[in-house]
Amino acid sequence: MNLKELAKELNLSISAVSKALRDSHEISSATKLAVLAKAKELNYQVNPFASSLRKQKSKTIAVVLPEIDNLFFALAINGIESIAQEKGYHVLIYLTHEDSQKEISITQLLQNGRVDGIMMSLSSQTLDLKHLQELKDKEIPLVFFDRVADKIDAPKVTTDDYQSGIKATEHLIEKGCDKIAFLSISNNLSISNKRKNGYIDSLLKHQIKIKEEYMLLCSQDDVKNKSIITKMLKKKNRPNGIFASVEKLALISYEVCNELNLKIPEDIKVIGFSNLYTAGLLNPSLTTITQPAYNIGKEAANILFKLIEKRGNQIIPEQSVLNSILVERNSSRN
Amino acid sequence: MNLKELAKELNLSISAVSKALRDSHEISSATKLAVLAKAKELNYQVNPFASSLRKQKSKTIAVVLPEIDNLFFALAINGIESIAQEKGYHVLIYLTHEDSQKEISITQLLQNGRVDGIMMSLSSQTLDLKHLQELKDKEIPLVFFDRVADKIDAPKVTTDDYQSGIKATEHLIEKGCDKIAFLSISNNLSISNKRKNGYIDSLLKHQIKIKEEYMLLCSQDDVKNKSIITKMLKKKNRPNGIFASVEKLALISYEVCNELNLKIPEDIKVIGFSNLYTAGLLNPSLTTITQPAYNIGKEAANILFKLIEKRGNQIIPEQSVLNSILVERNSSRN
Repeated sequence: MNLKELAKELNLSISAVSKALRDSHEISSATKLAVLAKAKELNYQVNPFASSLRKQKSKTIAVVLPEIDNLFFALAINGIESIAQEKGYHVLIYLTHEDSQKEISITQLLQNGRVDGIMMSLSSQTLDLKHLQELKDKEIPLVFFDRVADKIDAPKVTTDDYQSGIKATEHLIEKGCDKIAFLSISNNLSISNKRKNGYIDSLLKHQIKIKEEYMLLCSQDDVKNKSIITKMLKKKNRPNGIFASVEKLALISYEVCNELNLKIPEDIKVIGFSNLYTAGLLNPSLTTITQPAYNIGKEAANILFKLIEKRGNQIIPEQSVLNSILVERNSSRN
Repeated sequence: MNLKELAKELNLSISAVSKALRDSHEISSATKLAVLAKAKELNYQVNPFASSLRKQKSKTIAVVLPEIDNLFFALAINGIESIAQEKGYHVLIYLTHEDSQKEISITQLLQNGRVDGIMMSLSSQTLDLKHLQELKDKEIPLVFFDRVADKIDAPKVTTDDYQSGIKATEHLIEKGCDKIAFLSISNNLSISNKRKNGYIDSLLKHQIKIKEEYMLLCSQDDVKNKSIITKMLKKKNRPNGIFASVEKLALISYEVCNELNLKIPEDIKVIGFSNLYTAGLLNPSLTTITQPAYNIGKEAANILFKLIEKRGNQIIPEQSVLNSILVERNSSRN
């Protein structure tokens, strides 16, 4: 049953039926009632695409993410979805799998009105920001969360990454570590660099020598990651503390320590950014910097809907920073 | 820039431009080239909603899930997305959070042509299947995966749940358990019942008495779950083996054992359905029945696209069953 058939059944013009369904003032109440009754009788439903065309609204937002098999992003989606559901919006999910080419194709796909707004967390490989600037140039509402693009003028929701980097490093120093490794997956991502700056500044403050060999740049290839972490931990002058700026690098460090028979926390202490439900059940339980992932998703969605709704006088923060917490467990015990 | 403006620029009718853009045989090659050149020059992009209206295709599929902060579903989405991306489709994600009312509203929202097809994994609370039958009645392509509705005539992709139930139970029996608890979150879900039937049949085969008190029906409320598992494990006649048919119930069992000072595997052995990356790093490492989550997502998406494309003579399996594997680790060690 489409609009044309409904109009025919009612012996009215398509335009009159359409106006009646939109409660237009041009149509009499009697006609409106007749149209609604017939629409109900014939189980007529508004075609969302016709409706989107008329209103120039898709009632859809897109979430562009590097990956989904990571609790941080899963919880952020839960937060985003809770707000979208309240607003009656649909949520499209796109995964880049850390591939910047894929990120570019996805953003191109989203330039033509399919969505009313976009939330993004960058791929670790993204260097060139042209595709993001294009979204801005086309005035598509855009909000970054967690992995933000500092140089693009759009609202950004993150945790206190620099402070968290300090917190994690000072925690290891307090626990007696003086040779601390920093593991990250990117030299491009703003959040990685902020965490690293926190690490470096803490070492400087405590007059601990900064060593290039302790700063490992890992990748998407976990076999390679394992081998470079193994190489570092096999050296005579191996670190006695590991700060993993990404969850999976903490888990790979556990595996490597198991294989090399290095005891955590006796031989080496570990802290990692993580939202793992099982952090407390690991062997040993993992000390974490835990991000408020659900609230990051909610906050980013709230800001996006402000951009979409464009109500006058609304204050839209350019930066919104939520605090992470340090949860001390056995992997950094003294 | 819309179609009307583009037509005006070209001094052609809207219909001619539209046909040219669709490469219609009614339009000359010269005109087509002129239209394409102008479209490119003016950065004209096809409006996806106008395009969907014309083609009666939304190029979008919906995935309706109970939750996303669970690796099984996250990996299934990865599989679905890999196929959708190949096909040039967009993926909408809807979460029911195990609420059957929410599941009903979502399916109603999806009846009006917003999507070309739906993939579903049921909420554990869904009893009445009317909303699913409605999708079938409206001839909306529909595929169930993992948590399927046996009574709805639509393709279903699952693992070998009954066989896995047998495998898990016999594994515990082999390891010396004679008092085995079965933990599930639903009496409605077909997969829960199949796993339970495997459990019961194994006990019967090995002449182990079946006890109601060892079959715990848990819920969405993890505080309650913890308290009923604690109650069972505090009893004098507590089980010496736990078969958790759902990942989170294995993790809660670990917590309870820690609190009650019960040693796994010495005092009690544990096996659980799980796709956790960290299963091998838990204390002790967890023996799992691991489902091929990524391939389940891929297979379900492949079947859905066959239903959508409706090419003649394609064979569409009514049931597609992929095997789970048992990964033995320390939680069931003898």
